[in-house]
Amino acid sequence: GELRVGVLGVGRIGRMHAELLHRQVGGARVSRIHDAYAPAAAAVGTQLGVAVSDSTAALLAADDVDAVAICTSTDTHVELIVAAAQAGKAIFCEKPISLDLAEMDRALAAVEAAGVPFQIGFNRRFDPAHASVRAAVVDGTVGDPQIVRISSRDPEPPPLEYVRHSGGIFLDMTIHDFDMARFVTGSEVVSVSAQGALRIRPEFAEAGDVDTAVVTLQHENGCLTTIDNSRQAAYGYDQRVEVHGSRGMAASEDPRAHTGIVRTAAGEHAPSLPHFFVDRYTVAYLAQWQAFVAALRDGRTPPVTAADGRAPLAIGLAAGRSLRERRPVSLA
Amino acid sequence: GELRVGVLGVGRIGRMHAELLHRQVGGARVSRIHDAYAPAAAAVGTQLGVAVSDSTAALLAADDVDAVAICTSTDTHVELIVAAAQAGKAIFCEKPISLDLAEMDRALAAVEAAGVPFQIGFNRRFDPAHASVRAAVVDGTVGDPQIVRISSRDPEPPPLEYVRHSGGIFLDMTIHDFDMARFVTGSEVVSVSAQGALRIRPEFAEAGDVDTAVVTLQHENGCLTTIDNSRQAAYGYDQRVEVHGSRGMAASEDPRAHTGIVRTAAGEHAPSLPHFFVDRYTVAYLAQWQAFVAALRDGRTPPVTAADGRAPLAIGLAAGRSLRERRPVSLA
Amino acid sequence: GELRVGVLGVGRIGRMHAELLHRQVGGARVSRIHDAYAPAAAAVGTQLGVAVSDSTAALLAADDVDAVAICTSTDTHVELIVAAAQAGKAIFCEKPISLDLAEMDRALAAVEAAGVPFQIGFNRRFDPAHASVRAAVVDGTVGDPQIVRISSRDPEPPPLEYVRHSGGIFLDMTIHDFDMARFVTGSEVVSVSAQGALRIRPEFAEAGDVDTAVVTLQHENGCLTTIDNSRQAAYGYDQRVEVHGSRGMAASEDPRAHTGIVRTAAGEHAPSLPHFFVDRYTVAYLAQWQAFVAALRDGRTPPVTAADGRAPLAIGLAAGRSLRERRPVSLA
Amino acid sequence: GELRVGVLGVGRIGRMHAELLHRQVGGARVSRIHDAYAPAAAAVGTQLGVAVSDSTAALLAADDVDAVAICTSTDTHVELIVAAAQAGKAIFCEKPISLDLAEMDRALAAVEAAGVPFQIGFNRRFDPAHASVRAAVVDGTVGDPQIVRISSRDPEPPPLEYVRHSGGIFLDMTIHDFDMARFVTGSEVVSVSAQGALRIRPEFAEAGDVDTAVVTLQHENGCLTTIDNSRQAAYGYDQRVEVHGSRGMAASEDPRAHTGIVRTAAGEHAPSLPHFFVDRYTVAYLAQWQAFVAALRDGRTPPVTAADGRAPLAIGLAAGRSLRERRPVSLA
Repeated sequence: GELRVGVLGVGRIGRMHAELLHRQVGGARVSRIHDAYAPAAAAVGTQLGVAVSDSTAALLAADDVDAVAICTSTDTHVELIVAAAQAGKAIFCEKPISLDLAEMDRALAAVEAAGVPFQIGFNRRFDPAHASVRAAVVDGTVGDPQIVRISSRDPEPPPLEYVRHSGGIFLDMTIHDFDMARFVTGSEVVSVSAQGALRIRPEFAEAGDVDTAVVTLQHENGCLTTIDNSRQAAYGYDQRVEVHGSRGMAASEDPRAHTGIVRTAAGEHAPSLPHFFVDRYTVAYLAQWQAFVAALRDGRTPPVTAADGRAPLAIGLAAGRSLRERRPVSLA
Repeated sequence: GELRVGVLGVGRIGRMHAELLHRQVGGARVSRIHDAYAPAAAAVGTQLGVAVSDSTAALLAADDVDAVAICTSTDTHVELIVAAAQAGKAIFCEKPISLDLAEMDRALAAVEAAGVPFQIGFNRRFDPAHASVRAAVVDGTVGDPQIVRISSRDPEPPPLEYVRHSGGIFLDMTIHDFDMARFVTGSEVVSVSAQGALRIRPEFAEAGDVDTAVVTLQHENGCLTTIDNSRQAAYGYDQRVEVHGSRGMAASEDPRAHTGIVRTAAGEHAPSLPHFFVDRYTVAYLAQWQAFVAALRDGRTPPVTAADGRAPLAIGLAAGRSLRERRPVSLA
Repeated sequence: GELRVGVLGVGRIGRMHAELLHRQVGGARVSRIHDAYAPAAAAVGTQLGVAVSDSTAALLAADDVDAVAICTSTDTHVELIVAAAQAGKAIFCEKPISLDLAEMDRALAAVEAAGVPFQIGFNRRFDPAHASVRAAVVDGTVGDPQIVRISSRDPEPPPLEYVRHSGGIFLDMTIHDFDMARFVTGSEVVSVSAQGALRIRPEFAEAGDVDTAVVTLQHENGCLTTIDNSRQAAYGYDQRVEVHGSRGMAASEDPRAHTGIVRTAAGEHAPSLPHFFVDRYTVAYLAQWQAFVAALRDGRTPPVTAADGRAPLAIGLAAGRSLRERRPVSLA
Repeated sequence: GELRVGVLGVGRIGRMHAELLHRQVGGARVSRIHDAYAPAAAAVGTQLGVAVSDSTAALLAADDVDAVAICTSTDTHVELIVAAAQAGKAIFCEKPISLDLAEMDRALAAVEAAGVPFQIGFNRRFDPAHASVRAAVVDGTVGDPQIVRISSRDPEPPPLEYVRHSGGIFLDMTIHDFDMARFVTGSEVVSVSAQGALRIRPEFAEAGDVDTAVVTLQHENGCLTTIDNSRQAAYGYDQRVEVHGSRGMAASEDPRAHTGIVRTAAGEHAPSLPHFFVDRYTVAYLAQWQAFVAALRDGRTPPVTAADGRAPLAIGLAAGRSLRERRPVSLA
């Protein structure tokens, strides 16, 4: 039968997951939702026509929940993973699992002890363009990876209050790029060198954070990755990956808002990039769910594992140290 | 309150409309559906959680239907428009209204007599790229339109049986391009010169049809439009529009399936175009409904009118005559 | 030894040919030049360090002239071809050979009688992008050609005085496109349907000419070609060719002036197209000479033949008749 | 009158300069050449029709030499600059001036003492696309520069013997990118962090060199630059620059060999990049000479100064130290 998913947390991202899952993913439906803020749960429950549980515990105890989607704030992820694992549910968890390695390990140990399927929400792996870059490495077209370039820029910086609890740019934003570097090369990261600056929001200094960063990674296989991040790209949500190898290169370019152009004596004009991450990654979010559902249906390990959730956190913490200590930091 | 729409016909296109309307269009919902094939209606009713009416008459008589979406086969459109108009419902009708001008006029007269809002489903006008071409004409960027180029190619030819009842390539396929030519230039067509060939499906000769065509239009304002059609583009669904004017040009290019590329010594490789019209035009179908709902909410005339439904049929009939008589044909 | 070329006419185009030939084409050099306007000949002779002949006859009689490049005004081409053929020289002649079929046939008969190598200057065949389109037809990638689209737009209209003696847009401008249609399809043209308008220079009416045109060709193999021309593209020199076939399509896109772009919140901006035909086609002009020199060296027939010079004139004359008589015209 | 240039060294690069200068740069001509290998000098002298001097001293003593182009091997540059300066000649020198800062300073002191015009051959500044990136910074379109990305890849690695005397990848190859980073930002570099690997030619280890590198620069104005280099890009000569600023971004993309494309069911295919630096940068080399000639004519300082020659060497030496010592290195 269909996979019945209980969604924990229906804020902006949780609601998006619930809608996608319930309406567009074959073989699955949302059976229950819960949110600490009851009116939000009620609204989404009505909209989708699904049951609302009064508590996390009630949702986890329900018979009609095969898997849970953890879409709450980061600081609750570990407890929810532990509880869901003990309840024997398959788990999808939004990234990051935690900002603390020991806490994360506690969660992952619970998953392992329970033997439940687990997938971490690195949605960009499922973007068709980024996935085509990985595919060109896997099938040998690119050859042995030598240099990876990743650009990742948000259209607007978050508020200072958000930044204070975000773990800093490397855990909040670059973490996606650390995952991408591992994904496209298929090789672990052995050292990190980070540089950062405050060029956009000087007030982020209060949170000890930067808004502009360049990070260099060395991989186990000798590949070098350069990542550049900005909290504000005036022209839209800029997300590009390039792998250069012994035989060629593969890249994912930015989509434009549409394909219309204008040419005059002043030159050619095309529209800017989509500004919102959902516009860019809807197809990826959908494919992410399809992969989770298919893995559970077929009894396979979901494609983005607990180890994939842990490694980027370790890299991100090392990047923070590298920035503070102005030196490369090894991951051992 | 919300606009309550009754959907008549839930085959492939009707079901797509029902899903989009019900789930993604703010301010509207599907309140009832009907299909002559009861199991189809039942399936969609269950899926969306909406009521199924046993007959067209029942649907038109229901209190909770403010507007109807006519998504049945072309030969039923006129009768349904007349009935819906007499029932005082706002009407959205899939193109074409009819393959016969007199019949079409009967339908449009009923609409006018009833004074109900009416919109014809030329969805491509709502594609952001094609719409940007029109916008560049309206805002003067392109200047006075002089030449329009329209390419329109399907990835796969329809079956011969479909072709027999389609009215021929000019009424079935080029009709969208005739609408586009009027839309981007803002000028009526005064003469048509058509050439065609059978290059893909020789058996279409049995239906008196061609599968490859080039049509030239002269507009009232002196602009020339060239349209080329193919029933089979091996590389995907190819849909492009270009307007050249006194100050510049505007064009809608084809989107690729995704933005990944590969470069090797053999050159650069990018993915092909989407193959299915829904992949290309989902955003347009959605925007089409949003425009209909907004027009009704605000008491404005819907943006694609009865006259917009009629003119392309007249052009298409003239194109057929031009092809048969091997000469330009005037529309007077 | 090197091929020694005598250049007849060193106006703008002749001087360009002389410079390219003398400085950049291996295996050839300009040995003599002549121009009816002596100061022009003297200037180019000094610049290149080559001998100046006082008359055409003197140049044709010189021992150090193996081939001639005829770059004078169109109305002198036939006499010069006849004289050069009788002098036993290999001949390169700028297009068009003549505006009159009987005159052209007289020239071509002289060439045939003398048995001298002859090449007509349809330079666009040697553009790497257009040549790649032809190559994709020849090697089967595109499959059987079904539709060809050719756009050809000049950045600025010529003066009325020039237009009066040009033979009209079809013989002056579209003639390149008629050649391209034959080149990329490898198939002769059997009928022509032309439409035109005056949208840019109303005064061209005095010369009986149009400045905007759409022409449809039917080829022997069933392929349809649509050509659109404008005497004025505000955004530069627009020259594109597309062949659609049973397996795919091949196209030559417009180059931009350079590859720099800018992205802001207002969108993406790229430079316009080159405005001058020499900027666009220098590589083609060079390759054209290399092909001529190589053919003579190897004893092969030069790649653009007398027949290739004749056919586009016949098509152009038929296009003029089609425009005047408002009907398709057959070439029989 | 015309600027008379004496060319010292007519190997591959010197010959290219001589041909461009003599034939395509208005207001200048090559008056004399010299090469230690007499047959090379004789061949080029004959080809261009210019005098050959027997020695550097003879060329520098000649009355008909206003300026010299130093195109010999790097180890001779300093002596030739000193001698030319003392002879009162304007100087164009190929990069790098020297691999040693003290030696370079000796040369630059001689230039300053003599008060002669001096230009260093960072040709990429004159590429229209890279120049458009700089222009978008200067005119404020990009806003305050925050991140610069530079990719620079050669199609083929040089022989080991060349590498032994090249000063290493940072002085031989990245030096262009260090110049570009200063050029597009208009800001000096204050620290360098380099990482490198041997992924293409393991034998370069014998020369203590790497073939793959990622370098991060910090600029005085707070901007971060990331540079990635490879000695071998299978798909051609890859040279791209991007500046991201507070208002937008500007980038120079790679040109393709030509603009032809093919689309089939397998996707879209386009040609690879030009493989040879002369193919990519001919226009830049020409513009470089035009700028030198114009500056001398108008009595202005040539646009790429002695300081522009020195700074990239200092950055390159610091990059080498950073790589060896595995830490960021400051330039003070």
